[in-house]
Amino acid sequence: MHRPGKILLNICSRRFLKGFQQILGAKLSMVSSGISSSSAPFSYVPVNKASTTLPEATIKRDKYSHRTHNCGQLTVANVGEKVELCGWMEFQRMNKFITLRDNCGSTQLIVPDERTDLTKTIEGISYETVIRVIGTVNPRPNSQVNKNMATGEIEISVEHLEILNPSKTQLPFPIRQFIKAKESLRMQYRYLDLRFPEMQRNLRIRSKVLMRMREFLINKCNFVDIETPTLFRRTPGGAQEFIVPTRNPGKFYSLVQSPQQFKQLLMVGGIDRYFQIARCYRDEAGRMDRQPEFTQLDIEMSFVDRESIMMLTEDLLVESWLEELGEISTPFEQMRYDDAMELYGTDKPDARLPYKLQNVTDIVKTSIALTTKTGIEYNDNFGAYAVVFPKESKNFSNSTKAQFDDISKREFPQAKLLQVKITESSWKSGLTTLLSNDVVDSIENRLNLHNGDMLFLSVGQKPDVQEVLGKLLILYTNILESKGVTLRAPGFKWLWIVDFPLFSKEDNENGIRTTHHPFTQPHPEDLHLLATDPLKVRGLHYDLVSNGWEIGGGSIRIHNSLLQKQVLEILGIDTCQMSHLLEALDSGAPPHGGIALGLDRYIAMLCNATSIRDVIAFPKSMEGRDAMSGAPIQISDEDKKLYHIRTPAD
Amino acid sequence: MHRPGKILLNICSRRFLKGFQQILGAKLSMVSSGISSSSAPFSYVPVNKASTTLPEATIKRDKYSHRTHNCGQLTVANVGEKVELCGWMEFQRMNKFITLRDNCGSTQLIVPDERTDLTKTIEGISYETVIRVIGTVNPRPNSQVNKNMATGEIEISVEHLEILNPSKTQLPFPIRQFIKAKESLRMQYRYLDLRFPEMQRNLRIRSKVLMRMREFLINKCNFVDIETPTLFRRTPGGAQEFIVPTRNPGKFYSLVQSPQQFKQLLMVGGIDRYFQIARCYRDEAGRMDRQPEFTQLDIEMSFVDRESIMMLTEDLLVESWLEELGEISTPFEQMRYDDAMELYGTDKPDARLPYKLQNVTDIVKTSIALTTKTGIEYNDNFGAYAVVFPKESKNFSNSTKAQFDDISKREFPQAKLLQVKITESSWKSGLTTLLSNDVVDSIENRLNLHNGDMLFLSVGQKPDVQEVLGKLLILYTNILESKGVTLRAPGFKWLWIVDFPLFSKEDNENGIRTTHHPFTQPHPEDLHLLATDPLKVRGLHYDLVSNGWEIGGGSIRIHNSLLQKQVLEILGIDTCQMSHLLEALDSGAPPHGGIALGLDRYIAMLCNATSIRDVIAFPKSMEGRDAMSGAPIQISDEDKKLYHIRTPAD
Repeated sequence: MHRPGKILLNICSRRFLKGFQQILGAKLSMVSSGISSSSAPFSYVPVNKASTTLPEATIKRDKYSHRTHNCGQLTVANVGEKVELCGWMEFQRMNKFITLRDNCGSTQLIVPDERTDLTKTIEGISYETVIRVIGTVNPRPNSQVNKNMATGEIEISVEHLEILNPSKTQLPFPIRQFIKAKESLRMQYRYLDLRFPEMQRNLRIRSKVLMRMREFLINKCNFVDIETPTLFRRTPGGAQEFIVPTRNPGKFYSLVQSPQQFKQLLMVGGIDRYFQIARCYRDEAGRMDRQPEFTQLDIEMSFVDRESIMMLTEDLLVESWLEELGEISTPFEQMRYDDAMELYGTDKPDARLPYKLQNVTDIVKTSIALTTKTGIEYNDNFGAYAVVFPKESKNFSNSTKAQFDDISKREFPQAKLLQVKITESSWKSGLTTLLSNDVVDSIENRLNLHNGDMLFLSVGQKPDVQEVLGKLLILYTNILESKGVTLRAPGFKWLWIVDFPLFSKEDNENGIRTTHHPFTQPHPEDLHLLATDPLKVRGLHYDLVSNGWEIGGGSIRIHNSLLQKQVLEILGIDTCQMSHLLEALDSGAPPHGGIALGLDRYIAMLCNATSIRDVIAFPKSMEGRDAMSGAPIQISDEDKKLYHIRTPAD
Repeated sequence: MHRPGKILLNICSRRFLKGFQQILGAKLSMVSSGISSSSAPFSYVPVNKASTTLPEATIKRDKYSHRTHNCGQLTVANVGEKVELCGWMEFQRMNKFITLRDNCGSTQLIVPDERTDLTKTIEGISYETVIRVIGTVNPRPNSQVNKNMATGEIEISVEHLEILNPSKTQLPFPIRQFIKAKESLRMQYRYLDLRFPEMQRNLRIRSKVLMRMREFLINKCNFVDIETPTLFRRTPGGAQEFIVPTRNPGKFYSLVQSPQQFKQLLMVGGIDRYFQIARCYRDEAGRMDRQPEFTQLDIEMSFVDRESIMMLTEDLLVESWLEELGEISTPFEQMRYDDAMELYGTDKPDARLPYKLQNVTDIVKTSIALTTKTGIEYNDNFGAYAVVFPKESKNFSNSTKAQFDDISKREFPQAKLLQVKITESSWKSGLTTLLSNDVVDSIENRLNLHNGDMLFLSVGQKPDVQEVLGKLLILYTNILESKGVTLRAPGFKWLWIVDFPLFSKEDNENGIRTTHHPFTQPHPEDLHLLATDPLKVRGLHYDLVSNGWEIGGGSIRIHNSLLQKQVLEILGIDTCQMSHLLEALDSGAPPHGGIALGLDRYIAMLCNATSIRDVIAFPKSMEGRDAMSGAPIQISDEDKKLYHIRTPAD
């Protein structure tokens, strides 16, 4: 069975092809649906021989498969050529006109009237049957030219047609452009859903963008692509991690929520520039648009500062950007966390929005009435903010009002919301229930309110006040845009959010938790506050936000073991659990930092997809279920014994 | 905090740098080892400004970090330049000569005699402390030029020296070339082990080779890189899979042992050409050179035959090959499974070996003596094979003989082994204990035996006979090579092994198991045997072998659902468990096939590493333990409750 050269190779291919036909015969004889394959002797065009008559650019494409072209490739330039195509019979009319589809497009096949043998074969074929044809490229009659289709000026006059694999008659949903089944059905039959051009396009964009990122990082920036383990030890103080039992009784791995520790250890190991397109795991059941496993572009560098990582990230995005999405210009704007909250009421602002929060705390603070009427106290944390949509009160319905009131009361109990349509007169009564007339007049002047404007005002504890208005700002914009009002600026608006607080308040023993993770370097200007007033310490963290989506985040890390120990102690984390990291930092750790980009969300944004499930080949449901296989499922008694675990049923 | 342009950018960098110095001050004051940092005012050279004086090619390298060059970069061409370097102080002499190391190499630093402030700083620094220096490139005095070192013709006259992070005095082992700690210590302090040039080189080779593979597949062959889930449903009939409990009581995911099902479903989905560098999981505790998680290059294509995949794989390896490894020529030789067993006694032959098995069954069968003396029967499966090492009996010791006898008895009980040094005379008595004189004479003639030759002869059941000799062939070759005898041919000898049996015998209910996996297409010529004599059916499987290592394997898959059902039934696998795949094959599945290459092993081969652990950044021990973190560990009661499991201790 040695293969001493090219000539023998072709013979080999032919020999295999012959076998291929034999098995087809065997299979077809097993299929009882009355399909008959063409009885014409099959004259195979050997792959390599056929290729030599094709233009240079296409030879690569077809070196490794039976066809001479794909279904999106042929144009009038190929008229007269004999070609071989493989694909799915998407549609047929009159047992004569066939739309043949593959991943690259569709081609029209036409069966000559005299070939009644082929007509008969086609009659017995279900849609989505996989066929192979050999035929000649002809120009379409003028009346049938389709300028919207890459192959719309040609058709193939079929000489041979062979059934490679029949499809059953009734598929759960038809595979024709613009017909989309509901999501649960799409998920159950994902392999059919993937045939839609949208899914084909999304997965190809994903592959292309990731490849460009790699090319930039490896070929231009000297990064090393390093795979790190996913079976590891639980990281204290992070998201809920999946556990994996082992044959060692009572001992478990955890599936890593990110390669955070490994990337830092790689820097200690002198790798200098590391990246990985890393699979990460978080058990966050029931959260919208989250998957139990997800993918991030994970980057870490030594001898850098915050600006270095930002610059690298911007260059990375520019280099991997898709031309068809329009311009992406750098440097991206930077916004302090406090400013983001002040202007947008969120740490992931959609900078395309024309309207922002307006601070009226100074005015409202003078209103004695408020305290007596609501019990709200004017403490240090008091805030009063407004959002105005000029001339946009007409689309504000009672149901919207009820919905917004509900959100405010449920999610932001420490803020009181007032929603007022500004009219010629009488509108002030909506405010004077809480505020004195003077204060209402001042607000009218400050906000420059006019008849027809829509006003949202919230007073109370500042974080809740900012956040409820931040949420309504988005929601009311969405409502207006759904009615045809254009508010958001076009394109992508990128922002770096910086100067986050290192710690946040929490109702635990220490009253404190880390805002991001325990390895973030405190801002050098705030180091003196670490022992005395930790909630005032900013971290050298940065979030990358685009159009209101958080695309990534990173930080400069703590590289000094004593500082790391101090931060872990502030957080109440047992330092013994992190002894391997502390020891590493004590063994010559370079200053380092990095970033992680959430690729599922980023690609969904690039693809203009409504859900990350549209850019993942085999996603799971919100409950973590795989609709196709039914996973997760029960395990066997052998597995329980092997892994020394018992379940409720045992 | 907006950043309106390049000028501001530099200011930003400076500002951060200042913060950087502040924090350094803070850190150093916390370190009580008596280290003092340079008190000289630190004059920072802004990154971008410094770069403009450098040749174009190096600007990219330094755009994102503080240094102007790396430690392996400077040559006499840079003499006179002011440079900034960061790295680890690997070594110093007389508080004056410093070897500074980073991932790219080493540079000699020299402190001018008059800078007693710096001398004092250096005196207090431990090896492996991370420092930053600014200085001027000078040519080395002629007597000190080191031609073996990239930077061996220059040295840096240090003007500023700053401690970025001190290392503790006593590291578990020193980081200097050629000093290697034992493996358990290396694993526990992997972040130190990674600083050795060998590990740096191995991980970089891995990154580079994988990138070339991607470039070939995506840019030249139109493949789509698609990520598939690792949390899935157990695949019946494969390796032991790790399980992952969920919040749903009694329901578990399995960690996939390969993307096999997904890649086939992608073909059904019309993806046409898929690849993935995929993380796979197998719970094979205690097997040498295996990891619980490993990486494979996973490829699948539609409308292909066996030759297509082989050709693609060969081109892939050629395109990603490292020049320094010598030639790789295609096409690779193909060898039938039966021939591999006949000639090498293994399905992964090391084709560099000069000697092979020789079949003497026909001669030995005539020896009546054998049956009477050993009870061995001349059934259909009887075999007698020999391996001769001409003129190589002198290195055959009694302990080797004992070791080989032990292997034969323990692992291959159905084969009887005879080990004979051929001498002038009397050697035949070693054979005539079992064989008649005539037969021994025939063997002498057939094998052309001469004084000084080493003969291994085995008789009994063919599989055991072939395999024991296959094993001894390797072992005795290794022994001879360890004594300085060169036997193996240089370079890499590639082989495709084809025509494996589709099924193998097993002591289970069905008496049969799949040789590779249940999705392999039976050889078209053998389809008629499927129902009547399945053990005679060959599969369209192919293994890729190089120098005795199995690098990869693949097959043409079954694309017809009825045939797939038949094979599952032969194997006794419940078809309900695979209903999603059977349904997919029935919905228009194209003929398809693929291959998976084991990248850990392949890269280890390229790196000439003795273990795959040397090409994995953070490997686990043979028992699956992470020596650095201690994983796997016990889980908390909260986790047990969340995942509804109990362990032996509960």
